[in-house]
Amino acid sequence: MSSRDEIFDPAGLAGSIRSGDRRSLARALTFVENRAGGHEAFLDAIYPDVGRAWRVGLTGSPGVGKSTVAARLIEEFVARGRRVAYLGIDPSSPLTGGAVLGDRIRLGSGHGERVFIRSAASRGARGGLSAQTEAAADVLDAAGFDVLLIESLGVGQAELDIARVVDTVVLVMAPESGDEIQAMKAGLLEIGDVLCVNKSDRASADALYSMLKHAVEMRTNPASRRPEVTKSIAAEAGGAGDLLEAITNHHRKLHQSGRWTELRDDRLRKRVEDVVRLEWEKRFWTEARSEVLRAAVSSLDTSARKPYSLASLIVEESSDGGG
Amino acid sequence: MSSRDEIFDPAGLAGSIRSGDRRSLARALTFVENRAGGHEAFLDAIYPDVGRAWRVGLTGSPGVGKSTVAARLIEEFVARGRRVAYLGIDPSSPLTGGAVLGDRIRLGSGHGERVFIRSAASRGARGGLSAQTEAAADVLDAAGFDVLLIESLGVGQAELDIARVVDTVVLVMAPESGDEIQAMKAGLLEIGDVLCVNKSDRASADALYSMLKHAVEMRTNPASRRPEVTKSIAAEAGGAGDLLEAITNHHRKLHQSGRWTELRDDRLRKRVEDVVRLEWEKRFWTEARSEVLRAAVSSLDTSARKPYSLASLIVEESSDGGG
Repeated sequence: MSSRDEIFDPAGLAGSIRSGDRRSLARALTFVENRAGGHEAFLDAIYPDVGRAWRVGLTGSPGVGKSTVAARLIEEFVARGRRVAYLGIDPSSPLTGGAVLGDRIRLGSGHGERVFIRSAASRGARGGLSAQTEAAADVLDAAGFDVLLIESLGVGQAELDIARVVDTVVLVMAPESGDEIQAMKAGLLEIGDVLCVNKSDRASADALYSMLKHAVEMRTNPASRRPEVTKSIAAEAGGAGDLLEAITNHHRKLHQSGRWTELRDDRLRKRVEDVVRLEWEKRFWTEARSEVLRAAVSSLDTSARKPYSLASLIVEESSDGGG
Repeated sequence: MSSRDEIFDPAGLAGSIRSGDRRSLARALTFVENRAGGHEAFLDAIYPDVGRAWRVGLTGSPGVGKSTVAARLIEEFVARGRRVAYLGIDPSSPLTGGAVLGDRIRLGSGHGERVFIRSAASRGARGGLSAQTEAAADVLDAAGFDVLLIESLGVGQAELDIARVVDTVVLVMAPESGDEIQAMKAGLLEIGDVLCVNKSDRASADALYSMLKHAVEMRTNPASRRPEVTKSIAAEAGGAGDLLEAITNHHRKLHQSGRWTELRDDRLRKRVEDVVRLEWEKRFWTEARSEVLRAAVSSLDTSARKPYSLASLIVEESSDGGG
C-alpha cells in the first residue's frame, strides 16, 4: 500500500499516530488542515482518543512576547517529564525575520522527542481558523501529548476563537507607557484564566501587575471569572515558574469543579452544530434562492432592498423553483 | 398618541429621524440596539435612506489613542461643514476613569448640532456586536449624517467585525518599544485602508512609520490592498490633517472604482444571509433534534461521540419525531 493510499485509511492513520509515529502525525495534520477528502471520517475515527490533553492557549496583542513565553513553558513542562505539542501561527512570515520557535527552546539532551512543534499557517479564512485549529488540536490530543500549547495570532477574532478551543487561556500583557488603564477595558480581562505580565523587568511592570490584581479583586459579579495574575520574565530562563504554577492551579480547579468534562462536552456540541449549519447552507442556497437574492441586491428599485422582507421572501421560496 | 405607541409606528419614527429630531434618533437607536419588537419592520422602513453616509472605522489595540484620533477627526470634519455621528464602545466603564469623548472635542460655537455621539455599550454577545453596530449605523445613516465614525473595542473579533460594517478602515498604531516588527505580523496590516501612526511625537514613531511604508511597498501580490500610511499627533489640535487627507483619498478611490456601490450591495447580501440563517436555526433545532444531540454528548459510549456521524444523524432526523 502506497503512503498515498494510507491517507484514505482513517483507522490505519489513527492507529499510526496513536503509536507515536511522527511522520504519520505530520501527515495527519496536513490532511485535516487541508480538509482533504475523508478528513471527516478520520476525525470521527480518532475522536474516542480525544479529550485527554490539557489545552493551554496563549493570547495577547502582537509584540507582548507570546512565543517567548511559549518557549519557556515548553522547557518547564519537558523538565517535568510531560510531552508537549505546540500549535502556532506561521513564524516564517517574511515580516518576522524568520525566527523559528524551535530555535528559542533550550532543552536538555534527549528531551527533544517530548516536543512537537507545528506552525500552522493562518489561512485567513474568517471563521475557518478555529475549526482548523480545533481539528489539528484533536489530532495532537489523540497522538497522546499531555499538553497542547496553542498560540493565537493575537489579532482580531483569533483572541476569542482561542477561548473556544482551549481549557486554560493565558492572556499575555506587556507593560506599556501609561496605557495600562486602556488595556484593562472591558473585554480584555474577560478572556484570560491567567493574566501574565511579561517583560516584568521593565520599570512599569509592577504598576501593571498591581492594577490587574486590583481590577480582578474589585469584581463584584460572582459569575465573573477570577483570573490569577502572574509575572514572568520570559527573556530569562526560569522566569516561567510562577506562570506554570498559576496555570497548574487552574488545571486543578477545572478538574475539581467538573468544568474539565463540561468543556469537552461543550466543544463536541458546538462542533456538531457547526457541521450541521455548514451542511444546511450547502443545501439551502439553491440556484433559485441565490438568484432571488442576487436580483434584489442589484435592483435599482429601493423597495426591493429591504433586508428582513427579502429574507422572508427567500425562506418561503421553493427550493426547486425556477432559477 | 403616546411616545410609547410611536415606537411601534415604524414609518412615523423613520420620518422623525429623517427630519433631524434628536430625541427620536436616540429612541430609534435604543430600539434597534435592544432588538425590540418591530425593529425588523423599522429597519426595513429606513433602508431606502441607508447607504449615503461615509462609514469610517477606527481600530487598533487598546491604548493606541483611537478615541483621541476620533475627537480630532470630528473637529476636522465639522470645520469643513460636515455632519458627523460617532458610534463607539462605552467609555463610561468604571475602568476608564469616566473620560467621555464629548469632553475631548473642541468645537467652534454653534457647531455642536453637527455632531452626534453614541457610546453603545458592548453587549458582549459573540457575533451580535457587528449586527447591532450595523443596525445603529443604518439608523444614523438614514438620519442624514455625512460621516459615521465607528470606533471598535480594539480587542478580539471587533477588529475584523468593523471591516464588515465600514467603507474605510483606519488602523491606529502607536510606536512601542521595539515591538514594531511583531506588530506587522500577517493580519494587522491587512485590516487597514489607512495606517495611522499615532503619538508620533514619540522618538520611535519615525522608525514605525518607515517600516510600515516599506512593508506596504514590498507587497508583490497585486490583489493586496495598498493602504496609505500617515502620522498624527492626536494630542495636539490639528494633528489630524494628514489623516483626513489620507482617508479622503480613500473615499475618492472608493467612488472611482465602483467599490462604494459594491460595499453597499455586499452588506445587504450578508445581512439577508444572516437573517435567513438565524431564522433557519430557530426552525431547525426542534426539541427532537436537540434531544438527539444532548443524549449523544452526555453519552458514556464513546462511539456515540463522533462529530460528523452525529451531525449526519441529526440532519436526517425527522423534525417532528418523538422527543
